[in-house]
Amino acid sequence: MGKSTNITWHDQTVTKQQRRENNKHHSCVLWFTGLSGSGKSTVANAVAKRLFDDRINSYVLDGDNIRFGINKDLGFSEEDRKENIRRIGEVSKLFVDSGQVVLTAFISPFREDRDKVRELLNEDEFIEIYIKCSLEACEARDPKGLYEKARQGIIKDFTGISSPYEEPNNPEIVVDTEENSIEECVELIVNYLKDKNFYIAE
Amino acid sequence: MGKSTNITWHDQTVTKQQRRENNKHHSCVLWFTGLSGSGKSTVANAVAKRLFDDRINSYVLDGDNIRFGINKDLGFSEEDRKENIRRIGEVSKLFVDSGQVVLTAFISPFREDRDKVRELLNEDEFIEIYIKCSLEACEARDPKGLYEKARQGIIKDFTGISSPYEEPNNPEIVVDTEENSIEECVELIVNYLKDKNFYIAE
Repeated sequence: MGKSTNITWHDQTVTKQQRRENNKHHSCVLWFTGLSGSGKSTVANAVAKRLFDDRINSYVLDGDNIRFGINKDLGFSEEDRKENIRRIGEVSKLFVDSGQVVLTAFISPFREDRDKVRELLNEDEFIEIYIKCSLEACEARDPKGLYEKARQGIIKDFTGISSPYEEPNNPEIVVDTEENSIEECVELIVNYLKDKNFYIAE
Repeated sequence: MGKSTNITWHDQTVTKQQRRENNKHHSCVLWFTGLSGSGKSTVANAVAKRLFDDRINSYVLDGDNIRFGINKDLGFSEEDRKENIRRIGEVSKLFVDSGQVVLTAFISPFREDRDKVRELLNEDEFIEIYIKCSLEACEARDPKGLYEKARQGIIKDFTGISSPYEEPNNPEIVVDTEENSIEECVELIVNYLKDKNFYIAE
């Protein structure tokens, strides 16, 4: 049997708490929700840049790294959209457990789906950020030409046009990208995190 | 239209390279593969503890946080087992992109599935670690009583008993848990990482 019988098979695991203490900051999900073109990805990336400059480990999950990666098997049926958000929630939970701040930038139009993600995490680990912007302004921006295609019927079930967007009832943070500059949005979010002592280990 | 028309909608993203420089270490997957009871999880957690002590950001993916989380919709059919490993690979890629060292502890018995994960990553980002241990020794250890159930036919398609295990052809590292203590296995793996300059930013 060699030395194997002498091995102690108790796992010595590093805990979330220890990782937070080592990182000298809290870990959480900043869950951005809002219409297409509202500015979720832009604001999320600007916040991530600020956190990086402040030496806080953070990572952005968005369409680019999720839809072409772990969720590339999913389409846009109601079932697949639910599964899309569920998996993003589960990946986020792993990142929070690893001690990082994870920022998610997905329309995530349904309250039920967002609330299910909230339930996966502890109370102080899920920060819902509503990126408020009128449909008119989003459609005028239309950075990817998606609204035009939705109006023409080329894209079906498009949020805001042919599928509902459910505003958060009690989001932790609301930023309005028609009223505020990106820099102001970032300040609002970072100040929230500082107020809640996310910048120091719990 | 308010201020929104003046917003610069270019995303300013933080890159993997910048995160590695900030962290002062490389990021990669340490992919542990081997029979049930070979010691994958024990060695992976011991390496993670050592990396933590050395101030390297790392995280272990294992059955506990994957099978009950993102992959809780998957069973043990051939198709589901492939999808299980595919998703673990994609989650690992996100962690590597975030600048962390991720350690995965799954039997992952099939070469094809492991090689598909390898293809997701850059050449120096996938370190396959074969946890070598004879079937006899694993079965004698049987820490979860799984081999007994497999022999009784209670568990079907059990790797090593009723389903094949394909040894890696060219793993980056081999550790033998019958010959070496956990501490020796950890030293072997950490020395490999140091030799390859993983302990400093590229």
